[in-house]
Amino acid sequence: MKEKIERIQNMLKKHNIDAWVVFSHHSYDIHSKYLLQKWVSSPALVVISQDSSRVVISAMEAMMINHQAYEVHAYKKGSEMKENIGKIMKSFPDGAKIALNFVEADDALDMMNRDIIASGTKIALMKFNEKLQYVSAKNLIFDIRSVKTKKEISNHKEAAKLAEELMETVVESMIKPGMTEKEIAALVEYECNKRGGVAFDAIVAAGSHAAIPHHEPGEKKIKNNQVLLIDYGVTYKWSNSDITHTYWIGSNPPEEVLNAYEAVDQAKEAAYKLIKAGVLSSDVEAAVRAKFEEFGYDPEKYFIHSTGHPLGIETHDIGIGIRRAYPDSPSKPLLENSIVTVEPGLYFENKFGIRLEDDCVVTKEGSIRLSNTPKKMKCLDFK
Amino acid sequence: MKEKIERIQNMLKKHNIDAWVVFSHHSYDIHSKYLLQKWVSSPALVVISQDSSRVVISAMEAMMINHQAYEVHAYKKGSEMKENIGKIMKSFPDGAKIALNFVEADDALDMMNRDIIASGTKIALMKFNEKLQYVSAKNLIFDIRSVKTKKEISNHKEAAKLAEELMETVVESMIKPGMTEKEIAALVEYECNKRGGVAFDAIVAAGSHAAIPHHEPGEKKIKNNQVLLIDYGVTYKWSNSDITHTYWIGSNPPEEVLNAYEAVDQAKEAAYKLIKAGVLSSDVEAAVRAKFEEFGYDPEKYFIHSTGHPLGIETHDIGIGIRRAYPDSPSKPLLENSIVTVEPGLYFENKFGIRLEDDCVVTKEGSIRLSNTPKKMKCLDFK
Repeated sequence: MKEKIERIQNMLKKHNIDAWVVFSHHSYDIHSKYLLQKWVSSPALVVISQDSSRVVISAMEAMMINHQAYEVHAYKKGSEMKENIGKIMKSFPDGAKIALNFVEADDALDMMNRDIIASGTKIALMKFNEKLQYVSAKNLIFDIRSVKTKKEISNHKEAAKLAEELMETVVESMIKPGMTEKEIAALVEYECNKRGGVAFDAIVAAGSHAAIPHHEPGEKKIKNNQVLLIDYGVTYKWSNSDITHTYWIGSNPPEEVLNAYEAVDQAKEAAYKLIKAGVLSSDVEAAVRAKFEEFGYDPEKYFIHSTGHPLGIETHDIGIGIRRAYPDSPSKPLLENSIVTVEPGLYFENKFGIRLEDDCVVTKEGSIRLSNTPKKMKCLDFK
Repeated sequence: MKEKIERIQNMLKKHNIDAWVVFSHHSYDIHSKYLLQKWVSSPALVVISQDSSRVVISAMEAMMINHQAYEVHAYKKGSEMKENIGKIMKSFPDGAKIALNFVEADDALDMMNRDIIASGTKIALMKFNEKLQYVSAKNLIFDIRSVKTKKEISNHKEAAKLAEELMETVVESMIKPGMTEKEIAALVEYECNKRGGVAFDAIVAAGSHAAIPHHEPGEKKIKNNQVLLIDYGVTYKWSNSDITHTYWIGSNPPEEVLNAYEAVDQAKEAAYKLIKAGVLSSDVEAAVRAKFEEFGYDPEKYFIHSTGHPLGIETHDIGIGIRRAYPDSPSKPLLENSIVTVEPGLYFENKFGIRLEDDCVVTKEGSIRLSNTPKKMKCLDFK
C-alpha cells in the first residue's frame, strides 16, 4: 500500500498538485477503494498530499484501515466528521492546489467516469477552505489508472487465469439444460467470489438473448441447440478480468453459427496483429471491421459496439481502449503497459449472438495475451 | 412498471414539479435502476414528466427497456447521446421546474445519498436549456423511497423470507471449521443470487473479527469455539433484506458470550416494544441503550452504531431510521409503511462481537416482523 501511495505522491509532484482529496460515500468513488484497499460504507475522506496520507472515517470502520499507511481521523457522528474534514482542509497553506474528482462541464459528458464528486458535496468541501485552489483530478486519474504497475499487471494475469480456470474446471461441466440463465450466473459468480471477487454482474444469455450485448440473466431455461454466451470476470487484488465465451449447447452447431464464430475469432486475430504500444486505437478498430466485411457481415449492422475498453480497478477503466475515431473525438495511440479487452461480436436480433472477449497487456513489441477463448466453438453436449 | 411511473407522476403534481430528470452512468444513480428495473452500464437519461416517460440510452441496451412504459431514444455514439438529451431538455416550456438529483451545499453532507449527480455533469445538463428552473429532487426522492407501496412491502417480506430460508436450509449445514470467511461469504452470496440477488457484499466475521461491524471477509479460517457473525441480504424484485446472525461454532459458548447475546436479544425486544408509526426514532434508540446499561454494558463503549436504518432499493435507504437525536440533527417520528432494520450489537475489541439484525414494517399498530433471528444463540456443532 505504501508503494501505491508513493507512486501517487510522485505523480502529484509531476502535476504540480499539493494534494488529491477523494471524498467517498458508500464507496461510490472507486478511488477510495483503490487507496484504502477496503470497501467502506460510511462517508470517508482520503487525502494524499506530497508528504502525507490521511483519512477521515467512521469509528465503525477505522479499525479496517492500515494505520501504517494512513493517519486515521475517526468520527462517531456527522458533526465530528465535518470537524475532522474541516481540520484537514484548513491544514493546507493558502493557495495550495487541491485536486478533486470532478470534470469541468464542457468535458463532463465525455469523461463521466472521472466526474465523480456529487455537485453539492463538491461545493460543501470547497467551503471548508475557500483560500485553496481546486482543480480537476482528471489528468492525475488518467496517469494513475491508464498505465499499470508491474504488480497490477501481475494481478491482471492472475485474474484472467483464475477466470479461465473456473470455467474449464467447474462451470462448463455443471451447465445442464433446464438451468436458468440466472442460476448459471449465480454459479459463475460463486466461483469468481471463491477465487477473489466478482468483477461485474455476469451476463448469461441463451439463444436469442445472446443478441443483446448487455442482457440481464433471467428465468429463461437453457436448452439444447442454442448458443450460450457468458461474460464474466474475476477481481483479484482489485484488478479485474473480463472474458466472454460463446458456447453451443448440443453437438452440432448450424453453419450460420459456425460462420459467425469464425468471423469473430478472425476479427479478434486481426486486432491482435496490430495491437502494440503507439499504434492508433482506430487502426485496430478498422481492422476488426474490415475482417467482418470480408466475411460478408456489415459491421454497421451486426457489430454494435467497439472492439475493446481499458481494464483495471473498474471493468470499464480509464485509459485508451480500441474504438473508432470521430471528428469530435479523435483516436489516440495505445499505451505501453495498459490492459485492454479485445471483444468483437456479431449480433443477429431475435436469432443469436456471438462475442469472444479476451484481455491483453499492450507492450512495446505487441501484446501479451492474458486469456484465450477457443478458436473453435466449444460444444457443451448433454446427450 | 406503469404503476410505479404513475405514482411518481402524482408526486410530481403534489410537489409542483414538471419533470424529474435522472442521469446515470454505469447505473451509478440507483434511481435509474429503480425506474428502468434494469442495470444499465452505459450513460442513460430517464425523464419522468407529469404526462410522459422517456429514456435516452445506448443502442446496445435499448432492447432491454420496456417500450410500453418508456419512449426510447437510442444513441450509437457520444454525439448522438448529447443530441438526444438536448432534444428532451429543449422540449420543456421556458421556466418549467425540473428536479435533478442534487442537494444544495449546505445540506449536502447530511443528505449524501440524495446528492448524486456529478458536479460537472449537472452543469452540462443544465446548459442544454438555461431557461428551465432546476431544483433539488431531495423531497421528491424522500417521498418516493421512505414510504413503501403494498407491492414493495410484499417484496420486502419475500426478500426477508428467502434470506432466512437459505441460511436455515443450506448455509448453516454447509459451514465447516477450516472454511475461510471468504468462502462462507461466497456461499451465502451464491444462495442469495439463486433466489433473486445479493443486496450487499456479505460480512462474514469469525472470532475477534466480529468486533469489527463492517469487517471484510478474508482468508481467516473459522474454527471451533468462536463466534461467527454473518450479515447478508437478498434482493427480491429490487427490494432488499438485511439480516445478521451471530452463531457459536462448537457446542458450549462461554458465559460472557451468552450474556452479551441475551443483552442484544433483549435490546432488540426493547426496540420492538416501542416501534410504531409516529413514535420518535430517538425514543426507540434510547430504549435500546437503556437495556444495554441494565445488562451492565456501557453503550457508549460497546455499541458503536445506531439501532437501525431504513431499508429499500438500497440497503441503507432514504427515510427515517432508528438513531439518537443531536442538537444539529433532531429526531423524527417513524413513518407508517416504512421498512427499518433493528440491529443492536455489542463489540468487544480483539475478543468478539454480537449483532442480531432483523427487518420490520412500521405500522399504525406497531410493527410487522419480517425476520426473526433466534432468541437463543444457535450453536453450529461439528463434533
